[in-house]
Amino acid sequence: MESLDEKFSALEAENAPGQELRQDTTSLESIVIGKKLGGIPVDFSHGDVDAFPPTPGAETAWKAGFDQGGQQAYTEYRGALEIRKRLAERLGSFTGCQISADSELIIAPGTQGALFLALGATVTNGTKVAVVEPDYFANRKLVKFFGGEIIPISLKYMDSPAENGIDLNQLEDAFKGGTTVFVFSTPNNPTGLVYSRSAITKIAELAAMYHVTIIVDQLYSRMLYSGEIFTHLRSCAIQPENLITIMGPSKTESLSGFRLGIAIGTPKLIDRMERLQAIVSLRAAGYNQAVLNTWFAEPEGWMEKRIRAHEAIRNDLLEIFRAANIRTATPQAGSYLFPQLPPLRVDLNTFVRLLRHQAGVTVTPGPEFAPAFMDSIRLNFSQDHAAAVAAVKRIVKMAEIYRL
Amino acid sequence: MESLDEKFSALEAENAPGQELRQDTTSLESIVIGKKLGGIPVDFSHGDVDAFPPTPGAETAWKAGFDQGGQQAYTEYRGALEIRKRLAERLGSFTGCQISADSELIIAPGTQGALFLALGATVTNGTKVAVVEPDYFANRKLVKFFGGEIIPISLKYMDSPAENGIDLNQLEDAFKGGTTVFVFSTPNNPTGLVYSRSAITKIAELAAMYHVTIIVDQLYSRMLYSGEIFTHLRSCAIQPENLITIMGPSKTESLSGFRLGIAIGTPKLIDRMERLQAIVSLRAAGYNQAVLNTWFAEPEGWMEKRIRAHEAIRNDLLEIFRAANIRTATPQAGSYLFPQLPPLRVDLNTFVRLLRHQAGVTVTPGPEFAPAFMDSIRLNFSQDHAAAVAAVKRIVKMAEIYRL
Repeated sequence: MESLDEKFSALEAENAPGQELRQDTTSLESIVIGKKLGGIPVDFSHGDVDAFPPTPGAETAWKAGFDQGGQQAYTEYRGALEIRKRLAERLGSFTGCQISADSELIIAPGTQGALFLALGATVTNGTKVAVVEPDYFANRKLVKFFGGEIIPISLKYMDSPAENGIDLNQLEDAFKGGTTVFVFSTPNNPTGLVYSRSAITKIAELAAMYHVTIIVDQLYSRMLYSGEIFTHLRSCAIQPENLITIMGPSKTESLSGFRLGIAIGTPKLIDRMERLQAIVSLRAAGYNQAVLNTWFAEPEGWMEKRIRAHEAIRNDLLEIFRAANIRTATPQAGSYLFPQLPPLRVDLNTFVRLLRHQAGVTVTPGPEFAPAFMDSIRLNFSQDHAAAVAAVKRIVKMAEIYRL
Repeated sequence: MESLDEKFSALEAENAPGQELRQDTTSLESIVIGKKLGGIPVDFSHGDVDAFPPTPGAETAWKAGFDQGGQQAYTEYRGALEIRKRLAERLGSFTGCQISADSELIIAPGTQGALFLALGATVTNGTKVAVVEPDYFANRKLVKFFGGEIIPISLKYMDSPAENGIDLNQLEDAFKGGTTVFVFSTPNNPTGLVYSRSAITKIAELAAMYHVTIIVDQLYSRMLYSGEIFTHLRSCAIQPENLITIMGPSKTESLSGFRLGIAIGTPKLIDRMERLQAIVSLRAAGYNQAVLNTWFAEPEGWMEKRIRAHEAIRNDLLEIFRAANIRTATPQAGSYLFPQLPPLRVDLNTFVRLLRHQAGVTVTPGPEFAPAFMDSIRLNFSQDHAAAVAAVKRIVKMAEIYRL
């Protein structure tokens, strides 16, 4: 029998984004070199919804849901039908392929909630799941929690767009070897890499050929920078038998405080996800669901402006890291940077704690995204522009101080 | 390897409360006897938050949370510390035993969310879990989902308070036989039975003696009727090594649309629950958490008035069922009735669909609470008083029409 202690030690969350408050920093005093670096504290572990506030109209939409009373408090487990109809239309148009509101869409408590349901619906004891390295930290934890086996797939992200991407031969070998589920994010979290059209097409074809279920997390697909092209797997000509596409308004739209996400998928899998949701949390908070009415219906020009503001921050931060010879890939989408630090005289977790303690900067350590990334840190740069620039300068300074 | 199809067929949710919308009623036409029974439709599958609206101040508290911005959008996974501190104080006083806000309390997306986390933190493949019959429908589904084995414990609820209760010898035998977790609700859902002080004390003692983890769901413990006494297991002199107590403001306080619940428990188990929450949905919706500031701080007299209004409905409905010789236990707390129907010429699920189709009355079939209850239905009578009375008269009429 599997031990619960083992099972939960694999879910260690102390270094997870947002949990830094729970860390004990008293033990750092003896290893600090030099003085504190002053400046506005910046928490790069998640976006700053005060710097980039929620979609205009979010509060009004919430209030309309609350005023609707019982009907909105107790929706079907998969979410209110009227809201699903509106979303099916808008998301069908965005992703390039029609969606049945009744059978192919579910509203979940956050994109995290949708991902949990998706993996819960497809992974059980012994399921082999291909997981990209690096990728969103919860993917690996979820596979382990449901008793699955992780088959790692490497992602190249530091080279030119033509050379970057996952190793498709390695993926096909995994599929041949009995892998039945493949989960990945595009844009990739933490690197901002967008999978090319040819990679997405090939993944869809391989999945169809080997009967592999695909779970694709497209959380950041709206925050696409100048000149980049995004390919929706669900719009490919050849389709896998089972596909789940996950999105949500928590990032670009800053609606994270409402805990809303959606999954679009094969009816059989959406059914399973709803059954699981019934015992997990019943439904996404009823009144909050109404805020989805603002999604893909933002004021004219608002989204464009938000993307440009992020692109400007991205460019400035990349320049600072690169001037200091800290290798950092250019994110094609999303608001993450994943710089690779020089060799340090302290281990990465200690450096991350020092950053917080001495420089007022919170970042997420690379090993949250795959064990091998012991020299990288992730920054969510959806922050006040000037504060982010100053904080990244402090990171560079700290890397100099603690350089080996 | 366990089949996912099997796993999810055990989670069948079509007859679960709130899912009736998804049922197909076209096949009923051929078996309907007589005409439709007119009247205001009543959905007894859950409380009517329009008849009993949310706690005064809930909307203002939500708005204060929203206005706090990023700090309230991104709380620790276990919930905002300030809110946990306030809750620890109030719930410590309510349950008769101090609570550490830092280590013994977690905020979850609904009481359902808290229950999911509690069972996820304690049940894995092969864990033997004692489950009361009848009890809340999700208990059995959750144990199965996590790979546990259900050890059924019978509850007597139709007799006098002195005779009612679970079979404590059967419970001790289960504990002797390797059961390591016991989950139950008091007040019991669906019968409204409140476990006596002597039963609760004995459960705590047996759990301590046999090292069994207790999960006690006290969701309805505030809705206590005249002359009844509630015993909090966590206030007993002898304590189990591991105890989780679950509560939430979804029922008596009508805050279900916010999806808020809490668990109080042994620090090690609260830690596990937080790790699990990190991969399930990160946290209860941030802005909604602020609504917990109204909990146990309702306006003077408001709660008392709400309880009396429910007691009056309870008394009227019991009188109607009993006048028709439909056996129904008197709930000591909560807003559920669990009447036992006479033998019918159609099976129970068909009768429940006929009730909805022909009489505009939605109820939950007994087998949702344990397989044996093929002759019972559950009603949540937190409804408009007059509409509930009329609807229960229609149930009685329907039982006469379809009587064998």
